[in-house]
Amino acid sequence: MDVKVGIIMGSQSDWETMKEAAAILDALAVGYETRIVSAHRTPDRLWSYGQTAVERGLQVIVAGAGGAAHLPGMMASKTRLPVIGVPVRTQALSGLDSLYSIVQMPRGYPVATMAIGAAGAANAGLMAAAILALGDRALAERLEAWRAALSASIPEAPEGR
Amino acid sequence: MDVKVGIIMGSQSDWETMKEAAAILDALAVGYETRIVSAHRTPDRLWSYGQTAVERGLQVIVAGAGGAAHLPGMMASKTRLPVIGVPVRTQALSGLDSLYSIVQMPRGYPVATMAIGAAGAANAGLMAAAILALGDRALAERLEAWRAALSASIPEAPEGR
Amino acid sequence: MDVKVGIIMGSQSDWETMKEAAAILDALAVGYETRIVSAHRTPDRLWSYGQTAVERGLQVIVAGAGGAAHLPGMMASKTRLPVIGVPVRTQALSGLDSLYSIVQMPRGYPVATMAIGAAGAANAGLMAAAILALGDRALAERLEAWRAALSASIPEAPEGR
Amino acid sequence: MDVKVGIIMGSQSDWETMKEAAAILDALAVGYETRIVSAHRTPDRLWSYGQTAVERGLQVIVAGAGGAAHLPGMMASKTRLPVIGVPVRTQALSGLDSLYSIVQMPRGYPVATMAIGAAGAANAGLMAAAILALGDRALAERLEAWRAALSASIPEAPEGR
Amino acid sequence: MDVKVGIIMGSQSDWETMKEAAAILDALAVGYETRIVSAHRTPDRLWSYGQTAVERGLQVIVAGAGGAAHLPGMMASKTRLPVIGVPVRTQALSGLDSLYSIVQMPRGYPVATMAIGAAGAANAGLMAAAILALGDRALAERLEAWRAALSASIPEAPEGR
Amino acid sequence: MDVKVGIIMGSQSDWETMKEAAAILDALAVGYETRIVSAHRTPDRLWSYGQTAVERGLQVIVAGAGGAAHLPGMMASKTRLPVIGVPVRTQALSGLDSLYSIVQMPRGYPVATMAIGAAGAANAGLMAAAILALGDRALAERLEAWRAALSASIPEAPEGR
Amino acid sequence: MDVKVGIIMGSQSDWETMKEAAAILDALAVGYETRIVSAHRTPDRLWSYGQTAVERGLQVIVAGAGGAAHLPGMMASKTRLPVIGVPVRTQALSGLDSLYSIVQMPRGYPVATMAIGAAGAANAGLMAAAILALGDRALAERLEAWRAALSASIPEAPEGR
Amino acid sequence: MDVKVGIIMGSQSDWETMKEAAAILDALAVGYETRIVSAHRTPDRLWSYGQTAVERGLQVIVAGAGGAAHLPGMMASKTRLPVIGVPVRTQALSGLDSLYSIVQMPRGYPVATMAIGAAGAANAGLMAAAILALGDRALAERLEAWRAALSASIPEAPEGR
Repeated sequence: MDVKVGIIMGSQSDWETMKEAAAILDALAVGYETRIVSAHRTPDRLWSYGQTAVERGLQVIVAGAGGAAHLPGMMASKTRLPVIGVPVRTQALSGLDSLYSIVQMPRGYPVATMAIGAAGAANAGLMAAAILALGDRALAERLEAWRAALSASIPEAPEGR
Repeated sequence: MDVKVGIIMGSQSDWETMKEAAAILDALAVGYETRIVSAHRTPDRLWSYGQTAVERGLQVIVAGAGGAAHLPGMMASKTRLPVIGVPVRTQALSGLDSLYSIVQMPRGYPVATMAIGAAGAANAGLMAAAILALGDRALAERLEAWRAALSASIPEAPEGR
Repeated sequence: MDVKVGIIMGSQSDWETMKEAAAILDALAVGYETRIVSAHRTPDRLWSYGQTAVERGLQVIVAGAGGAAHLPGMMASKTRLPVIGVPVRTQALSGLDSLYSIVQMPRGYPVATMAIGAAGAANAGLMAAAILALGDRALAERLEAWRAALSASIPEAPEGR
Repeated sequence: MDVKVGIIMGSQSDWETMKEAAAILDALAVGYETRIVSAHRTPDRLWSYGQTAVERGLQVIVAGAGGAAHLPGMMASKTRLPVIGVPVRTQALSGLDSLYSIVQMPRGYPVATMAIGAAGAANAGLMAAAILALGDRALAERLEAWRAALSASIPEAPEGR
Repeated sequence: MDVKVGIIMGSQSDWETMKEAAAILDALAVGYETRIVSAHRTPDRLWSYGQTAVERGLQVIVAGAGGAAHLPGMMASKTRLPVIGVPVRTQALSGLDSLYSIVQMPRGYPVATMAIGAAGAANAGLMAAAILALGDRALAERLEAWRAALSASIPEAPEGR
Repeated sequence: MDVKVGIIMGSQSDWETMKEAAAILDALAVGYETRIVSAHRTPDRLWSYGQTAVERGLQVIVAGAGGAAHLPGMMASKTRLPVIGVPVRTQALSGLDSLYSIVQMPRGYPVATMAIGAAGAANAGLMAAAILALGDRALAERLEAWRAALSASIPEAPEGR
Repeated sequence: MDVKVGIIMGSQSDWETMKEAAAILDALAVGYETRIVSAHRTPDRLWSYGQTAVERGLQVIVAGAGGAAHLPGMMASKTRLPVIGVPVRTQALSGLDSLYSIVQMPRGYPVATMAIGAAGAANAGLMAAAILALGDRALAERLEAWRAALSASIPEAPEGR
Repeated sequence: MDVKVGIIMGSQSDWETMKEAAAILDALAVGYETRIVSAHRTPDRLWSYGQTAVERGLQVIVAGAGGAAHLPGMMASKTRLPVIGVPVRTQALSGLDSLYSIVQMPRGYPVATMAIGAAGAANAGLMAAAILALGDRALAERLEAWRAALSASIPEAPEGR
């Protein structure tokens, strides 16, 4: 399976959140790789990852980070590929710092920002799939089936009454 | 020029913000349409817009809204196409309400959220272009040229010293 | 007992909060039904629930949701019945996202917003009863008795001194 | 025209906001009165207003206030009638203080909270009408016509392109 | 010991916080009483407490409440005695709602607002003592001794190095 | 007229706000002085002001400051007199920074915090008067008359209908 | 005069704020340069600026940016020199986004964050001077004189009484 | 080893956070002392610590505090040495109060503010080292080695896939 999506994150501790993106891509049979790319600790890795992303055949980058959370935005500066950002929850500010740092990008360098935390990471996987599905009819069908299954799973009334 | 992007907004007053998305798509020669689709005032229009988007050949939807700002999220529920959300500034809460309502989507229905206001709208245009560029080499080149020009426009030192 | 109130919620997990509304309606002998209606996962269910609410004899809708929390506002768009919204607490933003998404509705589509969480759900039940009591003298008396009992239950001084 | 709705506000300066509620009730031909009732400056007026509201034939109370904004909640304590609260915008905190003070009511005393500012005041009028329409078929029809007209007023595309 | 300070609170659960005020007054040998006075559940008790406070010989009122937290402000409306407000922590908004509701009083009715939670309650006791000490030299000396002891209790360097 | 109240402020620009406190004390015939005491620029002035306050016969200190706003809290550390703090509005954070810096004092050093801005300054004057009135029957009567006049000034209905 | 301080900023519009830092360095006779270095638009300029800073003889870097504001943090990743960050005010979030993005840096890469806006920029100049003064006795004396003059400039009482 | 850095904190409980600064200085072989200096409880200690800091040979002061958090700013008023501030997390406001109180200093008295909590304390140690390294080549090399080691410690991909 070709690697189409790069799931990158600022540190090992972000994996707990970002594995939700991987799980979605697994479920939709989309090829991906996972890398730790720290904007501050490994800036040169960020540079070369961004600069080679297109030639390596990546099509979408999913980037998760917390706090000052510069990774998604810096990646958006280094590649024209769509970058999807996941604000990871933080201790003191609960991920609000991550959200602001990721979403408030200046004109020129968009980051497709998702919800804070695990739901946001899962949605990053779905957004990546939605983008890839534009050029992949089979994936489009798998995505629609996944969505239909989610809708069908909702019971009519709450249990526990 | 084929219409690939639907720029929709909750009300006429959002156009002041959303025209920035249109300007970017004009600059990059991407075909688009502009519609007012109010989640609350014209829910049936929202329904049919979402339900026919794929068959009408749209590939990306850019949705701007302010306040409770349900339009982007509801559109994400009605189509598998990537939906890009633009939080429009509001009087009392300055667009923080719009941001929360757009970005905090539940697992299953991502909205690619941009910055609050005009910069976010311009970036929505760029994100749409970045997505379409994955399947359109000429657009990819135009986008890279646009990015290079933006970088080249930055003077070395501030004027006014 | 006629069903006068529809208690709806975005997901099973909201029941933990919304059961407080049901408990109040039980205590006041007001007929109600409970349904899961997800704005994003089951939009068509939302549509038909809203569209048939009047003819089915419902008089008030109590809607609880968390995060982007589009359910109460979308229901307010689909029916002229009074909609009472309950912001469910969320992990990262503690329900502030839910509150903003529910209360900041645009001109035309009010949602009667309650406090975040369980107290808000209980109060949604009381607000529903207060509305129904306008046309039901016996219920008005039960509501006044409930309020009097609550007042009477307050001791003069705190225990544990 | 019978007075069914009491529009009360904490001070003269709130009228600029609250007149939107009056305008809606005028448009829907609902009888109302307007009063200044300050929770802090005229507490006894608040007391007697609340205590006589039912016997005077009022059915809904719309209360607007800013800052500490105790009026809606205190009125909810003094009458079983539904109380609709409008958070008026404030200088320093933009109405967030008003919103918290009005919406975060304890179990037992709901206030149906609207959006901050003028849109919230208009919606308070609509919510009052929706409640009264439960017992008044002609008003229900006027309300539905008002909603239909609002929907019909939305153009398909934004002007100014 | 004459009762000079009334410590009042909105509910039994506030006692956990407000007992810190009582502990300070005990330590400084200031007479006080403790009462549950709920602005919403026992508004008439609030009325009569405020109206009789001066004649009963009270000199300062310490009022703790959480959420909409109308008690301190309403008490300030009913008596000219200094009212000290303690914002009790809340589940969803951590006491920020209590703080805004207590501190943002309109011109005319000040509430001397303390920090959120237990430290604020202790400080309410100290503020009451500081006020009473203006007319009670012995208390002024006890207060100064208490302050000196607090200062003297601080070690030069942190333990645990 | 004896000087009983010291109105101090961090800078000349705070006078615009703090003059409201002076106006109230003028109206109630309470003697006061006004001083600029900057916690950071004139720390020694702060020190000596605090250390001599009791012996100079001051009874209450009203302190206004904006931003980091250390003046009220540092003054509370230097004197046992009651200190009333007024959070002055600021450009970027609208006085929320001032409010947090003033109200969140640690156990031991209360600051009686007022609302942000001019209303808070006026209320600081009233709180000072309420404190002094405990030992001054004539002032208590003037304060009660002032409060009664404020209540009497409220018209029954809003003008401009 | 040797260039010891590099004042960098994300865009021309930040100069309005950052010129306050330059003015302070002028007043203290500290040599500096001013450059526009955009983290997103000119990432390679950021790279080389950071990588050559030590060898070029810079000792302190003052970096101002608004919104996502990645410049100060990325510079801190590229050089061991002390980096002082100035959060520039923004339209929608008033600089709170800038503040969070600059201050919430992860372990390993501190940014010495100043207040939002012009006062913060001036203070960045003073902090740079304070750092350089550790190795420059004459500068230390000029800084102390500057501080003494600021203290001496404060009048005893507010004008305009 | 000469004492170059003073690590001070408002109370014993801050040590849990501030020990991270000490650990960094230990790792980089920088001499330091640790003191409890409470702005409110031991203002005279603060005074003399600040006034003697230069003559005692200190070069940098690291100050941690929570809540109203006046210590770093007051220290910045008393010495021209660079002061680094660490906002300690708090119960109710999670350290946002500490952050605002420390970072929003007025023109003239900068505090180099770090992130909230333990990461901020560690970074305070690193910032102190970066400042001292300007005049200490051996320390500069140790700091660069520390940074290189941190970068080298990052694995290429997350564990646990």
